[in-house]
Amino acid sequence: MLRWCLFLCCTPLLFGQADDIRAMMDRSQANWNRGDLAAFAADYDDSPDTTFVGKDVTHGGVAAILARYQSHYPNREAMGTLTFSELSIRVLAPDLVLANGKFSLTRTAAGGGDASGRFTLVIKKTAKGWKIIHDHSS
Amino acid sequence: MLRWCLFLCCTPLLFGQADDIRAMMDRSQANWNRGDLAAFAADYDDSPDTTFVGKDVTHGGVAAILARYQSHYPNREAMGTLTFSELSIRVLAPDLVLANGKFSLTRTAAGGGDASGRFTLVIKKTAKGWKIIHDHSS
Repeated sequence: MLRWCLFLCCTPLLFGQADDIRAMMDRSQANWNRGDLAAFAADYDDSPDTTFVGKDVTHGGVAAILARYQSHYPNREAMGTLTFSELSIRVLAPDLVLANGKFSLTRTAAGGGDASGRFTLVIKKTAKGWKIIHDHSS
Repeated sequence: MLRWCLFLCCTPLLFGQADDIRAMMDRSQANWNRGDLAAFAADYDDSPDTTFVGKDVTHGGVAAILARYQSHYPNREAMGTLTFSELSIRVLAPDLVLANGKFSLTRTAAGGGDASGRFTLVIKKTAKGWKIIHDHSS
């Protein structure tokens, strides 16, 4: 009986995060496709410990992450249209999620042409909601 | 007083993991450089949930991870000499660590030539010690 109570009580704890993260990724994709890099970057934790690993490593909060995106995607054409797919979510702790998936950019030749790759995100529930504390994109 | 007691009690919890992970990475590098891919792959969690993200995603335990390494590094020359550097360790929870860094392979031309890239590891303390539950290498 106690086991069932625990199961029923913990079930929302285990599944709620995945729904939250899917909603976050949908919103993130929509922010990008509206050309709103500032809103896109606001999903990162505004902390000096936040890391973004690409070819190099960016350390820092939202401003550092935003500057990185702005330098890589200087205009709307370079941003193109973003689609996230193959999203896999693993709950590491009630306040900690590991997500990985594929990103695809549909772009004009002038924008750099189509591009795609894979990402790993570590996402933490903070006082300001779920925030990305580490991103490895390649 | 209580604050100091908590700090002193928690300090080993916060710093012990980083030492463990540094030792693990040193051992991992030595395993590779001895040509022992099986020992290298044994640092991954032997679970179907373990993920390795490169260009594609490998799911599975030690055997799946080992098979991936064997297909990418079929002989000693292709393995070359591995060096890990720029290791950054972030303790996410007492049993969970996020590590990222750079890998460099020194290889002969026949082995594929020198190569380098970056990795993100999520490492969990299991009954069998610290094990990699997710690797994104690019």
